[in-house]
Amino acid sequence: MKPASPASVGVGPDSTPAQIRGAARAGALTSHTSGLAHRHVQGNLVILPQAQAADFLRFCQRNPKPCPLLAVSEPGDPRLPSMGEDIDVRSDLPRYRVWRDGRLVDQPTDISELWRGDLVAFLLGCSFSFEQALIDEGVMLRHVDLGHNVAMYRTTMDTVPAGPFHGPLVVSMRPLRAADAIRAIQITSRFPAVHGAPIHLGDPALIGITDLSRPDYGDPVPVLDDETPVFWACGVTPQAALENARVPLAITHAPGCMLVTDLFNHQLASF
Amino acid sequence: MKPASPASVGVGPDSTPAQIRGAARAGALTSHTSGLAHRHVQGNLVILPQAQAADFLRFCQRNPKPCPLLAVSEPGDPRLPSMGEDIDVRSDLPRYRVWRDGRLVDQPTDISELWRGDLVAFLLGCSFSFEQALIDEGVMLRHVDLGHNVAMYRTTMDTVPAGPFHGPLVVSMRPLRAADAIRAIQITSRFPAVHGAPIHLGDPALIGITDLSRPDYGDPVPVLDDETPVFWACGVTPQAALENARVPLAITHAPGCMLVTDLFNHQLASF
Repeated sequence: MKPASPASVGVGPDSTPAQIRGAARAGALTSHTSGLAHRHVQGNLVILPQAQAADFLRFCQRNPKPCPLLAVSEPGDPRLPSMGEDIDVRSDLPRYRVWRDGRLVDQPTDISELWRGDLVAFLLGCSFSFEQALIDEGVMLRHVDLGHNVAMYRTTMDTVPAGPFHGPLVVSMRPLRAADAIRAIQITSRFPAVHGAPIHLGDPALIGITDLSRPDYGDPVPVLDDETPVFWACGVTPQAALENARVPLAITHAPGCMLVTDLFNHQLASF
Repeated sequence: MKPASPASVGVGPDSTPAQIRGAARAGALTSHTSGLAHRHVQGNLVILPQAQAADFLRFCQRNPKPCPLLAVSEPGDPRLPSMGEDIDVRSDLPRYRVWRDGRLVDQPTDISELWRGDLVAFLLGCSFSFEQALIDEGVMLRHVDLGHNVAMYRTTMDTVPAGPFHGPLVVSMRPLRAADAIRAIQITSRFPAVHGAPIHLGDPALIGITDLSRPDYGDPVPVLDDETPVFWACGVTPQAALENARVPLAITHAPGCMLVTDLFNHQLASF
């Protein structure tokens, strides 16, 4: 069965975060959260048993640009009260991915039956928040205008490992004219909790990207002659590290099906 | 006679601004101020008759990136008390340039005899302040390491004219690796009073620069394969506009012979 579209279940850009979470909790919203409650912070979810959670926490601490931590739950507690009073990470995302030994085994819309007293939930900032800030400031983002996914690439820059978690830094690329690139650096520098400033700009080969037209994830986005490719650390980095770690159990959000929090994007601005 | 070096007249990086100005006032210091009282703001001086001062003030207001105004004197008053209690712009710079009808006619070390009741002094921020901030943050500047002048170029970007003042935007170029370029954008964004963030990076042809190895002012600085040229608005812009305006009388600092103010560079940081 095709998942119900957000509009068909009565949620949209101006819904409250609680309405979005309620629609997901009720099983009505089972598809992506892109553009829903669009002034609010959405987060990437990672759930791990306590045995691996400490390693993953150190991995995030050592790699803050790709893995900006917004919240970490108490072990066994499915709530994230700092992100919203009523949040239950077992039901409030439209769809999940369940990984066993590094392999995707299921994509349920609720994980209550999988919950255990030793699970820890991590919420990581995602680029939706800074993209909204860029658009608000008049910086055009071609992948948004085209309705595409952002183009993402594995680089030859390594993350700092922790326990079983390791792997390449994955970056997202947005082509911008120089003046917009400079403005985008200023704007995203204000948002360290959602990847912050770019990590590279200009020649892709310097970070091991050989062909911009062939992204490793997402959709290719053309770079025009008067544009510079600008690269940000990307939330796919921890997902790749998670696959590399082949932990016995991990639960994540399904792509695009994020947790919508009560935080406003602008609350993440550092100045 | 060769001008006395700063060291030979007993001033250096750790002198106070008042000591530097005193040495200039006494006629002992007649050469450049680069590196003197290095924690303090140095400014470019422009002196104009009141008849042209209003136009120049509007020119600066309309072109804040190349022409960041730190202070404007009262007509006929040679003091700039907000920049230092004892400042007398007629004597406190090591060397001046006198322009009549757009032509350089003299380079005296004191302009007391030229002072008139209708003259207005403008002090403009210069890149020394943000370069110090970059160096303090560990960003290497090749022209500084080489002991060269920064490379400067006329662009095809026009300033917004005001009265007789018009001309191209002149930029300075610093070659930086991508990570340093991003950091330099963050750092210089904090200093709008001294040119602020870059106005361009990457392909020089997009702003009308055809050959980086042949700057219009200053010294050529090599750009390595893994570097991006980064361009800032430059204080030569108002000097070029001043020459274009062919005003009956203008007095400026001689190149490198700036007014050393009591302000600390860090006081200009906007956050």
